[in-house]
Amino acid sequence: MTPAADVPRSPSTSTETLADLSEGAVLGRIFPRLPAAAAELLGPGDDAAVISAPDGRFVVTTDMMIQGPDFRLAWSTPHDLGWKAAATNLSDVAAMGARPTALVLAIAAPPSTPVSVLEGIADGLRDCCEALAPGCGVVGGDLSASDALTLAVTAFGDLEGRAPVLRSGARPGDTVALSGRLGDAGIGLELLFRLGVDADGVPDLERANALKLTHPAEVAAQLTPVPPIASGPIAALAGATAMLDVSDGLAIDAGRIARASGVGIDFDSACLGERIEVALGGGEDHGLLATFAPDSALPPGFRRLGTVTAASASVRAGTITVDGAPHDQSGWDPYRGWDGAAG
Amino acid sequence: MTPAADVPRSPSTSTETLADLSEGAVLGRIFPRLPAAAAELLGPGDDAAVISAPDGRFVVTTDMMIQGPDFRLAWSTPHDLGWKAAATNLSDVAAMGARPTALVLAIAAPPSTPVSVLEGIADGLRDCCEALAPGCGVVGGDLSASDALTLAVTAFGDLEGRAPVLRSGARPGDTVALSGRLGDAGIGLELLFRLGVDADGVPDLERANALKLTHPAEVAAQLTPVPPIASGPIAALAGATAMLDVSDGLAIDAGRIARASGVGIDFDSACLGERIEVALGGGEDHGLLATFAPDSALPPGFRRLGTVTAASASVRAGTITVDGAPHDQSGWDPYRGWDGAAG
Repeated sequence: MTPAADVPRSPSTSTETLADLSEGAVLGRIFPRLPAAAAELLGPGDDAAVISAPDGRFVVTTDMMIQGPDFRLAWSTPHDLGWKAAATNLSDVAAMGARPTALVLAIAAPPSTPVSVLEGIADGLRDCCEALAPGCGVVGGDLSASDALTLAVTAFGDLEGRAPVLRSGARPGDTVALSGRLGDAGIGLELLFRLGVDADGVPDLERANALKLTHPAEVAAQLTPVPPIASGPIAALAGATAMLDVSDGLAIDAGRIARASGVGIDFDSACLGERIEVALGGGEDHGLLATFAPDSALPPGFRRLGTVTAASASVRAGTITVDGAPHDQSGWDPYRGWDGAAG
Repeated sequence: MTPAADVPRSPSTSTETLADLSEGAVLGRIFPRLPAAAAELLGPGDDAAVISAPDGRFVVTTDMMIQGPDFRLAWSTPHDLGWKAAATNLSDVAAMGARPTALVLAIAAPPSTPVSVLEGIADGLRDCCEALAPGCGVVGGDLSASDALTLAVTAFGDLEGRAPVLRSGARPGDTVALSGRLGDAGIGLELLFRLGVDADGVPDLERANALKLTHPAEVAAQLTPVPPIASGPIAALAGATAMLDVSDGLAIDAGRIARASGVGIDFDSACLGERIEVALGGGEDHGLLATFAPDSALPPGFRRLGTVTAASASVRAGTITVDGAPHDQSGWDPYRGWDGAAG
């Protein structure tokens, strides 16, 4: 994480807004802050970028984050937004067993937005890439006007000669294992909804900042997740039979592997911690859930959560059980309040 | 353009909105309408897609279109929006001399949006790919909620062993040539601003429809551009020294080649048609502007517009002239009214 000497490392204190500058001038402020990609053959400045794909294939995923439905500016700093936009996309690349190589970024923002907000987003993207996927960088982008701050990231990865790890390869008897955290992001969101708002339920900067002091791990897991990107290629090398990024909660995402693979998954309650409903229901943890052949040792970073079971006439594919008993997914939903809160 | 027998070819007449369906159900309605990519090794349904890159490199560009700043629903049908989102991105890929291979699409829309709107967008994307870049298809996407309809497309291309054609390779004496239309899109926009609005200046469906009958070529050039995608690889094979997509007007975009190449560009007024200011100032034509060595024959589809000139102590790099005289870029600006019109 040693910065180049000439790259600014924190947002400028200027009060200029996007409306004060040309698009070219704004891009000129943002691009120097972004990390270069080792795979970049041609970067920003032409009609398109050119990226190296030595494997002869590339992995691609895209995700859009919009102010309101996806984030609140009272809770997330610009740096947080850039970090999360990178982290969630890198995690989808890693979930294929690929090594992230590059991102492109489209930003739309109101003309009244301070340039320092975009600088902060760029800094968050850079710091996330440097921390979680060294060598991955930003090779291009687009800047538009909008009423709501919007980030669209598309991320690329290289499979390094390996087959992609799909959701559909889990087999009965396989070990179900996780790399990453479980439940913290959901707790963080629930705390923000309950205590990070004012008396009218509107997201509140000061109360959110207080939560960041009293519950740093949970709030950080929600606002600035640290997915185990390196675990993706490690799991692929270790022979993972299926894998995905846990974005909607362990039970829902395990159900996706189970359905795609035509199997069931049984979790061992002793592996899920003290708050089982939180572990199963919390979203946005962005850990990597993978399955491995029964006789193979789990690779570093992964811990056992359960076992793949066979579907049958009485147990349909996609069924999730805990200690053999059906799991009710409606137990805990940290998103319950999401649509009701503005700001 | 022969459709698969089981692919729906026109929007459903259902009145369902996005709020009536799960995200999975909406995607299930959209994806069957989208074209598959010949380069697709793994399509939608996993954490990321896998695309073939036989060249060992890939070209990438991204662009966001937002209701309000970038389009008006009173003027553009959903099919128009899908078409234009694909066409503009394909054009940026072609401008590198690459063959478009695949797209990913992130859509954000209000929950009240009829599903048929998204179906129409998908149909427009499909029809554009089939018409302009056969074999190019949609390999993945993302669906979000927002207040303003937003489309973010990222497009990929294959260089087929060739060097990318950059903006920076034009040399004094080179022929400046264009494939595509010139000025129609700007005239179409000016017509829409002036005559496609009601008495209060608000974009109006009926008046826009009337314009589509009286000025079909100009309005279509603005709302559903047909960039000469095949001309990109053709120009590269013919040895184009520089190339770009004409998106902001001939004079501005020629200036970009000239600045990047350290040269000037002189247009021959006899090659610019009867309305020279419109030819030089109209934006969004999405033709391909390229330069070729003086002794090489222009490839099919390209016509001569002028000559690359040397920069000097008195003529700085980036200078655009017409018949040797400096060009004033402020002559005609079809976007003058853009920010003032809502709807």
